Amino acid sequence: MLDPKQLEALSAVVDSGGFDKAARKLFLTQSAISQRIRQLEEHLGQPVLTRTSPPEPTVAGRLLLQHYRQLSLMEGELISTLRPDAAQHAFSKLSVGVNADSLATWFLPAVQSVMQQGRLLIDVMMDDQDYTHELMRAGHVVGCVGTRPTPIQGGECHFLGCMRYLCLATPAFAAHYFADGFTPAALAQAPAIIFSGKDDLHSEFLQQFAGYTGSTPHLTLPTPQGFVQATRLGLAYSLLPELMIDDDLHTGRLIDLLPGQCIDMPLYWHHWRVESSLTQALSEALQTHAAKVLRQTPPG
Amino acid sequence: MLDPKQLEALSAVVDSGGFDKAARKLFLTQSAISQRIRQLEEHLGQPVLTRTSPPEPTVAGRLLLQHYRQLSLMEGELISTLRPDAAQHAFSKLSVGVNADSLATWFLPAVQSVMQQGRLLIDVMMDDQDYTHELMRAGHVVGCVGTRPTPIQGGECHFLGCMRYLCLATPAFAAHYFADGFTPAALAQAPAIIFSGKDDLHSEFLQQFAGYTGSTPHLTLPTPQGFVQATRLGLAYSLLPELMIDDDLHTGRLIDLLPGQCIDMPLYWHHWRVESSLTQALSEALQTHAAKVLRQTPPG
Repeated sequence: MLDPKQLEALSAVVDSGGFDKAARKLFLTQSAISQRIRQLEEHLGQPVLTRTSPPEPTVAGRLLLQHYRQLSLMEGELISTLRPDAAQHAFSKLSVGVNADSLATWFLPAVQSVMQQGRLLIDVMMDDQDYTHELMRAGHVVGCVGTRPTPIQGGECHFLGCMRYLCLATPAFAAHYFADGFTPAALAQAPAIIFSGKDDLHSEFLQQFAGYTGSTPHLTLPTPQGFVQATRLGLAYSLLPELMIDDDLHTGRLIDLLPGQCIDMPLYWHHWRVESSLTQALSEALQTHAAKVLRQTPPG
Repeated sequence: MLDPKQLEALSAVVDSGGFDKAARKLFLTQSAISQRIRQLEEHLGQPVLTRTSPPEPTVAGRLLLQHYRQLSLMEGELISTLRPDAAQHAFSKLSVGVNADSLATWFLPAVQSVMQQGRLLIDVMMDDQDYTHELMRAGHVVGCVGTRPTPIQGGECHFLGCMRYLCLATPAFAAHYFADGFTPAALAQAPAIIFSGKDDLHSEFLQQFAGYTGSTPHLTLPTPQGFVQATRLGLAYSLLPELMIDDDLHTGRLIDLLPGQCIDMPLYWHHWRVESSLTQALSEALQTHAAKVLRQTPPG
């Protein structure tokens, strides 16, 4: 069988982003880490990590990581069944991929009770909502919240609900740029906000609701809270999740540029098909909470 | 001279994370992008991009990007001097690296007026505060907010002030885990929050103020707002920037686990030594605003 110490070393190098950090994390010397990785590679006859900075898992490395995460989970369950007293004091750990807007709004309240009652610690990895399942496929996480509607191979997926996005700006910004409406001329002038190069939501919105496919001036902000803050400061207009805007619409701090028009983004919970009461509890908690806070419109 | 169209293609591939996205961004075909990159490489006799997904700039690529960013900036200034009318309608663009806690608190208000008056759009790239200068060195950004106290080669740096971090938890969390004080036994049991594998702040704090170097259970959350939310939900204790905690201490929602003990993290503004009135205005705006909101204790 594979040596779990070697898999642990691989996991630590990938998660911490370096051999030195992995060594500190596992209270080992750096050469002990290198040796374990080397032994693993000799055993498998192929490299498991690229020697870049940070080191990245190869295809073989990713499969090993996936295997190791599932192994850890199953072992944790087994131990807590065999030695309930010992388990009482230990935390279990799960890595999950979450899109930024979910993490900024409903995700933590949804997992609060399962974390406290199940003595669960969560490592959240964040990515664009269309890419979180890549974190899962790469073996970084045991489950993820994302937009992919079909299970990935070996996994299951559940519809959580839709996150609704509205197109908002301050009244002053709207008066300055959109006095003549949401026209192509205005869209070519008014600064928008995009999340990152991976983010297509804004251009999809413009195409769908204004038939606009031209370029727009934009700033790039890599956090949902940055979107809200920059929009409130009047620096740009943006698509904001309705869950993030508090009372801005009621107080008139922000106005809806296209009332009645919105994007409903369906979100799904993906997880590996592994028998574990903890992932099951997590899945249930996410689905129950999401049913309360996300729009339950059936996807497209 | 270097062909700016080729440099623009390089910049678009790196910023958008792929040849296909770069093509869409520049309204070109993907083969036109590939051709420009290939011509640039033939001209220089070496690769400028790795053919990975996403493509990464090589060392040569990084130097070219740095050069291109500075070129764009200087040209923008020149155009706005030569054709003030045309410039009135155009936005200038700057990429800056900002640590997550600054972006979550004081950064956007600090740049608000220079963005509005200078018709400036900012692309923010985020990284751990000890790594933002790497974004600058890699040619991704023209300036950055980070902890490095000395200028990088070819750059300047200015002290902005210190961000103060307090060690906080809910009263219920404190009563459960820290009833006997901030002891090694408690630290080995109480879940903390860390930002990422790159984040050493928490372990430094424990070492400095509790002489504790052992391991601690922890969850990983990649956003400052996640730290605040998880701490308020009673899932963990954490080091939080005082700028993020609103009235939590006054209302008693959170309590200070080590009153009088805190970490003051010195922050610096780094930028390339380029003559540009816009970067100058940005530098001044950041320094003026930071002087008001960050602790002006001289760095240790």
